[in-house]
Amino acid sequence: MGFKGLCLSIFDYKTEKFVIAQNKKVGILYRLIQLGILSYLVGWVFITKKGYQETDTAIQSSVVTKLKGVAFIDANITGKGLWDVGDYVIPPQGERVFFIITNFIITRHQRQGICAENEDIPDGRCKVDSDCQKNTLVKVGHGVKTGRCLNNRTCEIYAWCPVESGRVPSESTLKGAENFTVYIKNNIRFPKFNFAKNNVFVGKNISYLKSCQFNTEENLYCPIFRLGDIVSLAGSNFQEMAVKVKCIGGSIGMQSDLMEIYWVQFHLDNSESCSISTPYQRFASYYQDANGTDYRTLTKAYGIRFDIIVNGKAGKFNIVPTMINIGSGLALLGAGAFFCDLVLLYIIKRSNVYRGRKYESVK
Amino acid sequence: MGFKGLCLSIFDYKTEKFVIAQNKKVGILYRLIQLGILSYLVGWVFITKKGYQETDTAIQSSVVTKLKGVAFIDANITGKGLWDVGDYVIPPQGERVFFIITNFIITRHQRQGICAENEDIPDGRCKVDSDCQKNTLVKVGHGVKTGRCLNNRTCEIYAWCPVESGRVPSESTLKGAENFTVYIKNNIRFPKFNFAKNNVFVGKNISYLKSCQFNTEENLYCPIFRLGDIVSLAGSNFQEMAVKVKCIGGSIGMQSDLMEIYWVQFHLDNSESCSISTPYQRFASYYQDANGTDYRTLTKAYGIRFDIIVNGKAGKFNIVPTMINIGSGLALLGAGAFFCDLVLLYIIKRSNVYRGRKYESVK
Amino acid sequence: MGFKGLCLSIFDYKTEKFVIAQNKKVGILYRLIQLGILSYLVGWVFITKKGYQETDTAIQSSVVTKLKGVAFIDANITGKGLWDVGDYVIPPQGERVFFIITNFIITRHQRQGICAENEDIPDGRCKVDSDCQKNTLVKVGHGVKTGRCLNNRTCEIYAWCPVESGRVPSESTLKGAENFTVYIKNNIRFPKFNFAKNNVFVGKNISYLKSCQFNTEENLYCPIFRLGDIVSLAGSNFQEMAVKVKCIGGSIGMQSDLMEIYWVQFHLDNSESCSISTPYQRFASYYQDANGTDYRTLTKAYGIRFDIIVNGKAGKFNIVPTMINIGSGLALLGAGAFFCDLVLLYIIKRSNVYRGRKYESVK
Repeated sequence: MGFKGLCLSIFDYKTEKFVIAQNKKVGILYRLIQLGILSYLVGWVFITKKGYQETDTAIQSSVVTKLKGVAFIDANITGKGLWDVGDYVIPPQGERVFFIITNFIITRHQRQGICAENEDIPDGRCKVDSDCQKNTLVKVGHGVKTGRCLNNRTCEIYAWCPVESGRVPSESTLKGAENFTVYIKNNIRFPKFNFAKNNVFVGKNISYLKSCQFNTEENLYCPIFRLGDIVSLAGSNFQEMAVKVKCIGGSIGMQSDLMEIYWVQFHLDNSESCSISTPYQRFASYYQDANGTDYRTLTKAYGIRFDIIVNGKAGKFNIVPTMINIGSGLALLGAGAFFCDLVLLYIIKRSNVYRGRKYESVK
Repeated sequence: MGFKGLCLSIFDYKTEKFVIAQNKKVGILYRLIQLGILSYLVGWVFITKKGYQETDTAIQSSVVTKLKGVAFIDANITGKGLWDVGDYVIPPQGERVFFIITNFIITRHQRQGICAENEDIPDGRCKVDSDCQKNTLVKVGHGVKTGRCLNNRTCEIYAWCPVESGRVPSESTLKGAENFTVYIKNNIRFPKFNFAKNNVFVGKNISYLKSCQFNTEENLYCPIFRLGDIVSLAGSNFQEMAVKVKCIGGSIGMQSDLMEIYWVQFHLDNSESCSISTPYQRFASYYQDANGTDYRTLTKAYGIRFDIIVNGKAGKFNIVPTMINIGSGLALLGAGAFFCDLVLLYIIKRSNVYRGRKYESVK
Repeated sequence: MGFKGLCLSIFDYKTEKFVIAQNKKVGILYRLIQLGILSYLVGWVFITKKGYQETDTAIQSSVVTKLKGVAFIDANITGKGLWDVGDYVIPPQGERVFFIITNFIITRHQRQGICAENEDIPDGRCKVDSDCQKNTLVKVGHGVKTGRCLNNRTCEIYAWCPVESGRVPSESTLKGAENFTVYIKNNIRFPKFNFAKNNVFVGKNISYLKSCQFNTEENLYCPIFRLGDIVSLAGSNFQEMAVKVKCIGGSIGMQSDLMEIYWVQFHLDNSESCSISTPYQRFASYYQDANGTDYRTLTKAYGIRFDIIVNGKAGKFNIVPTMINIGSGLALLGAGAFFCDLVLLYIIKRSNVYRGRKYESVK
């Protein structure tokens, strides 16, 4: 028709031609399907699962901890009667992961030299000198064999002597450690929304924050936790844990919806997976005697390891996921119509009539 | 018609019958709606929000830091005149989180024994012996009460003696700490794309990297930062911070589009949340005297805590999100047509004519 | 017709009127397009990319490591003949990041005082006293200039004396360090599904776990790794690395589908990015002499830095992504139909006939 006609025809409005089948059964079926899809879309996708939001789970967090408390310990075993924060926390920096010593084996005045290997090490046992091959390392042991077998029992080795031996005392735990308190400050940030918050500023004043203690009923926003309470929340008993030396993962979950952060769950992960390997650490403190010779104290420290893990999810309205969900809901309505068409054209009575009216054949 | 007829009929092509309403108003409305949806899809979803990409925000990062610098300190207070890296950085490993000591209270030659509790501890104050119940811990204190009240002022306790006391000197800061430099090396990896990169290899040579200093105009790719600059970038003043002891979160953001990583933002999070709890640490250094008795030096160190937090997002073209967005755009076009149908059939003049032509009734 | 009529008309079923074009070519084209879209949807989106799942990549992990092993070292250099775990691991806590010392420069008995700066420091060199400006810090040096030039060579400085000097011995490495073993326990948790697991409990008994050693063929589930093997898996040679002092990122990937975790890849990231900056650490051990004066031993330790990075992805069936993918597939089918309409109405022969039958004009 020419260019002008073409341009005008762009603005013609085309609408599909419909056949109205006055079959109420299919009509009701179709309305039910529509209602189902709509309920799914509004009730499940939008309201329950918040499908109108974009989410950010890549939470950044910075945790600072501070222990407080002193506890008595049996002086005969250790030579130290009272332990404070400088003594029982490793490391002292107050980070996300810290270890409280509750029991230990101390080996003092170790010097480099020659002595007998520990009897408990299988590869260190011997009957005669030839059992101890010179200059070979003792497997899972403490040093290098010199070639001699001492007392027909254990190899002589070059190592830090005397070697560590003994069993951890079953009684000399740090008594009162369950009353220690840990202050946990957690700064979080959701980079996608550039939203930052921390658990301390939730509307409380400084004096409250300095003296409160967390509990699940009243003081949900208090950042100071008693160690015994933490362990109870994990479903365990502190003294039992201090001896059996399990480990605790501290998990602080925070959920955010439309930018409201609230303290949801303080969840401790005290799974049986900890019992396979008893958490302990070995560390050495070095000294020099009057001659300038190094000697050291080796400590095998048992205790409870705390690991504060933070997860969180922030959500904010966003047009793109909203439109995606609306769009897929509309497409599902189309599928519903297709299904009802099948019913109308092939299943019900008089379907041939509808088939004849719906389809026009062109030769 | 038989099986063959059925097979042939599968390849018949069915197309909807349309009614062309030559009402230009509805036609223009429909074209506008189509244009709107298309602009949204192309302009917002694909171009601005990069809807054709799948993204990875689960960035893995490994940060190594190295401090350099020495500073003078008032020898009368501490007995040490000059501090270098071995003295002021905790911990020394050069990790993501480190603490620079700028001020401190040192308590030397502490030994386990009996002495007076610090006057500042409320629970340690007393008038008579009965105020100090024997064998009870001093709340938020340093030790265990022996049952005696000394000088009608404070309880006698068993603790590491002498107990820590005093206020942090307001002047004896580590002078010159703002000139320290920190070298930050950050290896990142996006596991979804198996793509790894670090901030050092951006095409610079080794001599540049060893001697440069970061600034936001010229040396954006230099991994060496002056501490004073970091604090200024955070909007603070170094000397002020060193005394008021706030904390800094260092955040290095990297964005990647089609696998090009660029150094976007060095953002420091210096929120007021740090002022509630002054960052300090207590740590002890242990010594032994000639008799082999333990004694220690307790240091309460104030300073600035640096926490390097890395976030990043990588994106790469992927057919699935592309198709999802295209699909939902198409479905929205269908909604637009439905809306225009409503206008055509119920709102405009002569709508009854269109209704009559659009719908065929079957009895 | 009144309200009742309106209500009844809601349950009328409307179905589009279709024109059947018996053009087999367009029919086959349309079926091919439908088949293509269906294959994409089922084969790629659902089966390959698991589009029916919601995923969680925000894995939380808690890693504990434990080193074992002793090694000999040349006693002349260090004064210590045998190193065990207390000596060569920094830090001792057994965390995700640890450093094994394989070579070092030790400077003993450093005291605060006056001595000559190290010759290797450019800013410390001088010819006459005026080259050393009093009370200025030596750039990248060890202390503060006093104003004197010693021996026409280096400035006299106030620092921890004697200053560190010398080159790292090329031979005195920790011999046998490649035989050390590291036990890596990794607890993971996917917060979205509240699913936790660790790498130790995969059905093995305790005795196996205590004595096994990881290798890629048989012992895939053993959590004990030999250091030399780790380095080989990274494609490097241990002795080479111990001297050239590179760094290793340990990456343990785990994938989960329908909640089955399996040990997929132990991937080490040994990129060239490490060679720019040699990993070393400086740390000081403090002692007191009989007069109570502080002195220290400064160690510049070279070695291998291990950084265990955990990533993982968990997936679980979810109706929402399933419906979104189905919905977008249906919308794409609509686009396919639109394309075939274009072919039918404008491209093939007799298209004008079909145009005439498809569109009814209303005046």
